[in-house]
Amino acid sequence: MEGSDDPFIDLRERLRRGKGRLRTMGSDYLTYAHLDTIVDQYFPLLEQLGEDIEQLEEQLITYADQEVLRTLHVFKREMILLRKAIWPLREVLGHVERGESTLIHSSTHIYLRDVYDHTIQLIETTETYRDMLAGMMDIYLTSLSNKLNETMKVLTVIATIFIPLTFIVGVYGMNFTVMPELEWPWGYPLVMGVMLMLAIGMLWAFRKKHWI
Amino acid sequence: MEGSDDPFIDLRERLRRGKGRLRTMGSDYLTYAHLDTIVDQYFPLLEQLGEDIEQLEEQLITYADQEVLRTLHVFKREMILLRKAIWPLREVLGHVERGESTLIHSSTHIYLRDVYDHTIQLIETTETYRDMLAGMMDIYLTSLSNKLNETMKVLTVIATIFIPLTFIVGVYGMNFTVMPELEWPWGYPLVMGVMLMLAIGMLWAFRKKHWI
Amino acid sequence: MEGSDDPFIDLRERLRRGKGRLRTMGSDYLTYAHLDTIVDQYFPLLEQLGEDIEQLEEQLITYADQEVLRTLHVFKREMILLRKAIWPLREVLGHVERGESTLIHSSTHIYLRDVYDHTIQLIETTETYRDMLAGMMDIYLTSLSNKLNETMKVLTVIATIFIPLTFIVGVYGMNFTVMPELEWPWGYPLVMGVMLMLAIGMLWAFRKKHWI
Amino acid sequence: MEGSDDPFIDLRERLRRGKGRLRTMGSDYLTYAHLDTIVDQYFPLLEQLGEDIEQLEEQLITYADQEVLRTLHVFKREMILLRKAIWPLREVLGHVERGESTLIHSSTHIYLRDVYDHTIQLIETTETYRDMLAGMMDIYLTSLSNKLNETMKVLTVIATIFIPLTFIVGVYGMNFTVMPELEWPWGYPLVMGVMLMLAIGMLWAFRKKHWI
Amino acid sequence: MEGSDDPFIDLRERLRRGKGRLRTMGSDYLTYAHLDTIVDQYFPLLEQLGEDIEQLEEQLITYADQEVLRTLHVFKREMILLRKAIWPLREVLGHVERGESTLIHSSTHIYLRDVYDHTIQLIETTETYRDMLAGMMDIYLTSLSNKLNETMKVLTVIATIFIPLTFIVGVYGMNFTVMPELEWPWGYPLVMGVMLMLAIGMLWAFRKKHWI
Repeated sequence: MEGSDDPFIDLRERLRRGKGRLRTMGSDYLTYAHLDTIVDQYFPLLEQLGEDIEQLEEQLITYADQEVLRTLHVFKREMILLRKAIWPLREVLGHVERGESTLIHSSTHIYLRDVYDHTIQLIETTETYRDMLAGMMDIYLTSLSNKLNETMKVLTVIATIFIPLTFIVGVYGMNFTVMPELEWPWGYPLVMGVMLMLAIGMLWAFRKKHWI
Repeated sequence: MEGSDDPFIDLRERLRRGKGRLRTMGSDYLTYAHLDTIVDQYFPLLEQLGEDIEQLEEQLITYADQEVLRTLHVFKREMILLRKAIWPLREVLGHVERGESTLIHSSTHIYLRDVYDHTIQLIETTETYRDMLAGMMDIYLTSLSNKLNETMKVLTVIATIFIPLTFIVGVYGMNFTVMPELEWPWGYPLVMGVMLMLAIGMLWAFRKKHWI
Repeated sequence: MEGSDDPFIDLRERLRRGKGRLRTMGSDYLTYAHLDTIVDQYFPLLEQLGEDIEQLEEQLITYADQEVLRTLHVFKREMILLRKAIWPLREVLGHVERGESTLIHSSTHIYLRDVYDHTIQLIETTETYRDMLAGMMDIYLTSLSNKLNETMKVLTVIATIFIPLTFIVGVYGMNFTVMPELEWPWGYPLVMGVMLMLAIGMLWAFRKKHWI
Repeated sequence: MEGSDDPFIDLRERLRRGKGRLRTMGSDYLTYAHLDTIVDQYFPLLEQLGEDIEQLEEQLITYADQEVLRTLHVFKREMILLRKAIWPLREVLGHVERGESTLIHSSTHIYLRDVYDHTIQLIETTETYRDMLAGMMDIYLTSLSNKLNETMKVLTVIATIFIPLTFIVGVYGMNFTVMPELEWPWGYPLVMGVMLMLAIGMLWAFRKKHWI
Repeated sequence: MEGSDDPFIDLRERLRRGKGRLRTMGSDYLTYAHLDTIVDQYFPLLEQLGEDIEQLEEQLITYADQEVLRTLHVFKREMILLRKAIWPLREVLGHVERGESTLIHSSTHIYLRDVYDHTIQLIETTETYRDMLAGMMDIYLTSLSNKLNETMKVLTVIATIFIPLTFIVGVYGMNFTVMPELEWPWGYPLVMGVMLMLAIGMLWAFRKKHWI
């Protein structure tokens, strides 16, 4: 029970040494000490999460793949569960702080007010992280939309240039016995020239539309 | 009326045995007992839902089809109806707890406070589940967008490589009488080589864009 | 004024008969009676809307066209207007209920509390309906995305299989004088076989991607 | 300063005539009169906006282009700024109404309560308009998605029917010396017949999918 | 410590000169002076941000590229962090203002009330900016959707017109020995005429659909 994972090890140590307020003040102060220990556990956790989120955000801007999305979702889920864990603390401490309990000495009140403020701070921080994660989700989705737009532009440019040209060469691939153009000595270079001009014209139109 | 589905069966049993607080305390305690029984019914229900949601989430990550989406929607709907059922309980118990009724003895107050806290807990849990379901919906929609992007990339890669090549082979399928390239002994392998280089060049360009 | 559409017809009738609390209690009770009549008008309306929404939801799951979307929007708009109509009632009754007016006898308070609770119930119901409509909108949009994905898959499968094949047949449609494959007696069936294998290979690849 | 744009012109006129409550009551009533004048300015503004929004909504349903979207955005922005302008009024009047100031006579309270109620009403109306505008934005986006789906269906139907047919005619455009089908007297009508049946089959499949 | 970046330089100066309320009033007034200095720092910051946002909005309407999106995201993030910084101020000042502390003289209360109002104003302003940024994000996303629709229309129009025509020229490129049309003297112009009419018909259909 007294391994390094025990959050109350420090509290017990202070009680054993028999000094400080823990021994001179009543059971309400002991309650405060426990609550304070519990609430203080969340701060390094949230700090770590905050750093992870910032790191993910940088990753998102550099190169966003589905791995980033999965991590994003894991963070969102953790935030939901964290909030669920912290919220009841606020409820309880809020009641105590409003002086609704006769079990708390007025001298302990100021300490409990402090824990209450810490809890509020924790909740504010999770809300901030949630907002940041929501913003990152938006970036991811927008980058998806942008990529789709890019892909479709490439397809459209290629298709729009080559589909009409392929039609033209198809025309002169027809086997009609009477097709005078085919006999013209300059027919082939003429058709090639017309197609080149068409291609250039379409490229110019796409450039004007800011597509390429 | 006393089948196994009757939630008040236990309450009646305790009344019949004639022991405990139910017989010694007033009608306000009886009211509390009923409210407590009603509120406690929701906990196993919510627990079951929570497990179902976690299971669905795993399914969503592994393989998301429209069946998962439909289940997701059913859960969302149930959550809306659950919330609608629990909310008025909170209102009523909140009024009672704030001491607005003279029908409640002060000794019963602490019990009602307990039921009130349970109701708050129920509402918090449904809110958490709603958040989780909303997050899952987001994952589903993002996976749809990702799939569309994938599909479009495949189409664009195939079309961008083969549409220009098809144009080139179309050119040499034209029936002009004067087309010197057609007479060249190395014309055919030359054109094939040029097309191969074009294809490799485009594949390389797509690789650079991280499309393939 | 006393047609069947007059909501206060019943109230007037009770006043005329000269019996009941309406005549023995003061003007504050009369006010209550009016407020109660007004609030009670909303219940059948909301019930009708609730049934319509459930019906629309079933329609949405069976076959969602733009007609359903339009109806959805009409319901959303009605909900906004209903909420706008009910909200001020809550404000007014909330003030009265908190005992801020000296014009209300304490004996009438319990009645007004009842109307207040009904108003809260109305607001809760509109909120629930709004949530349901928002969920239905989500289903509609997701089904649109799903349909687009389906359409694009069909296009991509067809194009990816036939565009490369069309290129191949184009190659052997070229008119180069020196194209040894064209002279091979088994050239034609060979090319057809290669193309068949290519098509089968691609179909297999699409099957593996769960596209068909 | 006393042009027709001056909102306080009526107030000054009443002061000058030296009659009415403005002269007999104290400076708190004068404050009320000013506040009332300010708040009342917003009502015709909001009414005008409401009519404009309803008109835009009709336009949106008839024919939604980017002009409508721009107007929608302008309205949304105005709503945000209106809300920012009205909100502090509510704060101030809320304080005064809760009797926190000793500068207000109790006889003036009922008037200030009236202005407060008007402010609440203004805020409710802007909220309603915001909801309506959000709903209109949703319609616009859904109509965009619907249009994209329509466009893609047209493309897919055309491409799915003609790309395989083009492949088939390509096959019989190949120049292999040994292609027995080419010599068949009924080869040409046969191929045309097969292609016709293929096209009809695909049209039937699309009809079954409700695409055409 | 007394460089131009020190926000308290003015406060210290006033203390040194030994005049004004700072010397005659107690430590609670000094606290107020510090809080006021801190809160006032935010106003020029927010004003600058407001101007930057308005400028970005104009940019967004003129020409929206990914650079604008990135700036938008930076602003959203700054708003989240600003809100996180200002929120606790409100909490603290709210407590003080509600008279919960005995350390504040009643004469200082009115000053603290002023700082509190400023804090509320700051929060309102950040909320307004957040709404504006969310609206701008919506515009960006809608413009993306519009662009995709435009792109797809271009692709569909081109493909729908030329894919059937390419099929037709492919038909007459087939090498069947018996193809009577090929021998007709007017076969070539006839086919070209039919294709022209088909193209015009499709262009007319697209015009009717408001696609071009």
